[in-house]
Amino acid sequence: MTSSTRPPGRPRSSVEAEVFAATLRTIHDLGYTRATVERIAAATGIAKTTIYRRWPTKGALVTACLVDTFEPLSFGVDSREEDIAAAVRYGARQLAEPGVAAAFAGVFTDAIGDPGLRELLTTQLQDPYRQALMESLGLPEQRVLFVIDVVIGTLLHRMGITGEPMVSDDVDTLIAMLQHELR
Amino acid sequence: MTSSTRPPGRPRSSVEAEVFAATLRTIHDLGYTRATVERIAAATGIAKTTIYRRWPTKGALVTACLVDTFEPLSFGVDSREEDIAAAVRYGARQLAEPGVAAAFAGVFTDAIGDPGLRELLTTQLQDPYRQALMESLGLPEQRVLFVIDVVIGTLLHRMGITGEPMVSDDVDTLIAMLQHELR
Repeated sequence: MTSSTRPPGRPRSSVEAEVFAATLRTIHDLGYTRATVERIAAATGIAKTTIYRRWPTKGALVTACLVDTFEPLSFGVDSREEDIAAAVRYGARQLAEPGVAAAFAGVFTDAIGDPGLRELLTTQLQDPYRQALMESLGLPEQRVLFVIDVVIGTLLHRMGITGEPMVSDDVDTLIAMLQHELR
Repeated sequence: MTSSTRPPGRPRSSVEAEVFAATLRTIHDLGYTRATVERIAAATGIAKTTIYRRWPTKGALVTACLVDTFEPLSFGVDSREEDIAAAVRYGARQLAEPGVAAAFAGVFTDAIGDPGLRELLTTQLQDPYRQALMESLGLPEQRVLFVIDVVIGTLLHRMGITGEPMVSDDVDTLIAMLQHELR
């Protein structure tokens, strides 16, 4: 993915893909705190100013990177029970990718004291899922936000304590607990 | 709490209390990343070298501070249902204290890429709760670790996204969900 001789006129989507890959790789290698925009830029060969023009802060860059990682899911295709299982498994799989859990935990850490970053996380990362889950599962907003807290929070806490993704046994327990909760 | 003229021969516990209070206050004011040991020391009037002698890294200091915040709970006093409710409410209350959620999310973020810090978090912060819950609730280790992930992860995720502690309605939902799960 790294390239210091990218051709001129490369489409933006390709630059984004390169920056996002370098962001996760750098966070995975150095940890969230030491993964500065400068270091991420150095890993791509793309000018730091170009990156800052597109994403004005490290928080904005990492949030965009997470939005890209957690593609929109299509809910409501199967039964509610199957939708819940698929969503939890998808979340567990994505959080297990190198750098993703650390990126997530890192922006959350920064967001606790940064209202602007919380706004970004809410509108860009959480809202598409909130809306999709409200529509497909036919649940009120408060229920859906609670479920998102439980799924992502539980999976992230496991990564933080053990450094490993949750084993599939426990993912199954999480799914069964939420299927009962939303019955 | 801040004092730059502490008397000589002050007992260690008093120094600890002062350093822990300054740690949470500094994290609350500046965020986890900018709350360096240097800044925490400056907020106390205690020499940085004294702090480093006791807690060799920022991760060790913040972990000790969290252990101090989450005092051992006595479980098994009431019914299992009441024990679960009391434990979740206690966790929610402590995480709502200024600086605590940011400190927690911060060490977790660092721990994802730092096996030594994970070891500290596991043995010093999580193990006393794991053992107490296993004994009082009579549950196997895997169940207890799952419950800890759900409680702390869910509460922290809510703080990360909203910057506010979970409202009591949702804390009640979390309690009821876990009471059913552990029935």
